Amino acid sequence: MAPISQALLHKLKNFVTTGLLLAFFVYLVFGAIIFHALESPTEEKMRAEFWEFKRNLSKKWQNSSQCFNSDESTPVVVLTQEDSRKRWGMDGALGFSGALLTTIGYGHFSPVTNAGKAFCVAYATLGIPLTALTVSAIAERMRNFSRFLAKKISEKRPQWNRKTVERSCIAGRVVVGLVVFFVIPTWIVQVAEDWTYGDSFYFVFISLSTVGFGDFVAGERIDREYPVNVVFYRVFILLWTGFGMAFLGMV
Amino acid sequence: MAPISQALLHKLKNFVTTGLLLAFFVYLVFGAIIFHALESPTEEKMRAEFWEFKRNLSKKWQNSSQCFNSDESTPVVVLTQEDSRKRWGMDGALGFSGALLTTIGYGHFSPVTNAGKAFCVAYATLGIPLTALTVSAIAERMRNFSRFLAKKISEKRPQWNRKTVERSCIAGRVVVGLVVFFVIPTWIVQVAEDWTYGDSFYFVFISLSTVGFGDFVAGERIDREYPVNVVFYRVFILLWTGFGMAFLGMV
Repeated sequence: MAPISQALLHKLKNFVTTGLLLAFFVYLVFGAIIFHALESPTEEKMRAEFWEFKRNLSKKWQNSSQCFNSDESTPVVVLTQEDSRKRWGMDGALGFSGALLTTIGYGHFSPVTNAGKAFCVAYATLGIPLTALTVSAIAERMRNFSRFLAKKISEKRPQWNRKTVERSCIAGRVVVGLVVFFVIPTWIVQVAEDWTYGDSFYFVFISLSTVGFGDFVAGERIDREYPVNVVFYRVFILLWTGFGMAFLGMV
Repeated sequence: MAPISQALLHKLKNFVTTGLLLAFFVYLVFGAIIFHALESPTEEKMRAEFWEFKRNLSKKWQNSSQCFNSDESTPVVVLTQEDSRKRWGMDGALGFSGALLTTIGYGHFSPVTNAGKAFCVAYATLGIPLTALTVSAIAERMRNFSRFLAKKISEKRPQWNRKTVERSCIAGRVVVGLVVFFVIPTWIVQVAEDWTYGDSFYFVFISLSTVGFGDFVAGERIDREYPVNVVFYRVFILLWTGFGMAFLGMV
């Protein structure tokens, strides 16, 4: 009876993992909708004020012969349009929710309204444990798949030393994981963002370690046409982050 | 013999925890020294360039009757001195190393040199597991202390139900932990930073969850005299973060 109950256990675990993944994605979208609803109006207002401020500044200084006093404490720089870009559309809100739940927290933007901050705390209190559970369930499935592979190989090649096969499978999954979650994403991000290879790897590392400085964030360039569909690219980033964290948890 | 070996095990664990804590602090200071050495010269250069840029801008526009064309794509704002503040002194480098090792990664500043980024990756690869080990060792000591307390109480009050005492101790450590690591730090940060209570709690939560957006960072205000010694305050922030994360790991 042992193999059957084992198979049943596997099925049950697959079922639980699928359920967790589903719950995670529903929770992610739910969060994005709320963040979008809470933050978007304030953002629109602030953007309007920014343009108003800019217009007034231009008007005021157009007829002034002396724009700046020589007081060194008020330096002046020219801003690009990027500083007034829209952050809290549904796509931005989804990216924010993902960064929050994985605790990466890039922080290149974050809620400014009190309601947004309060929701952020409540949402993360439930969501971070849910995400951790999902990630560790995926990690366990990945570990099991590697064990399953080792067993199959041992069955097909009974003359090979079982321990050696198992160890090779563990070494193999580390190498495959490093290629799939570090080398390939670095290459994809490098092409998509036009960063150097070093900067791309730095971004990959800082993201998967959940540090997330926000100095490099994928899918955020507006001065450049992406060579791939941006929505597809962002979904790839989200999946890569989740499974990559699971891989790190598995090692 | 059981009690003696138990006591020995406890001593050994205390020894290991102390060793880990020591190793963590040495590693933290080591990282800060390297980051300071790698990033500080570039920062000095960039600051000098910034002031030069500002001076040229003032000179150029002092004698110009029309400072801005009406092209709306080049808005202008006045920068405060904060934007050119020094980040990579030893104190800033220490704060950066702490945020990196705990994976909080506030990201209000991060390395810009290639050497700094490369060291960041290598340093975190070793340091994040070391920090995780240290934090979980502290968590275990905290859990053990709570168990020890439950045992002492049970010995002194044998008439009380043992299970009830144990459960009360668990509930007690959650309440004490919430007060020590959430309520009191929120109050201290609120007084020290002059933020609202809501913003202070939001900062405490976003830090302990290791999300770290960087929209609020303690000990970083330069427009305000701190009512406490800043070095002392920053050490408090570091200790609070570490032990607070251990508390969350314990729950």
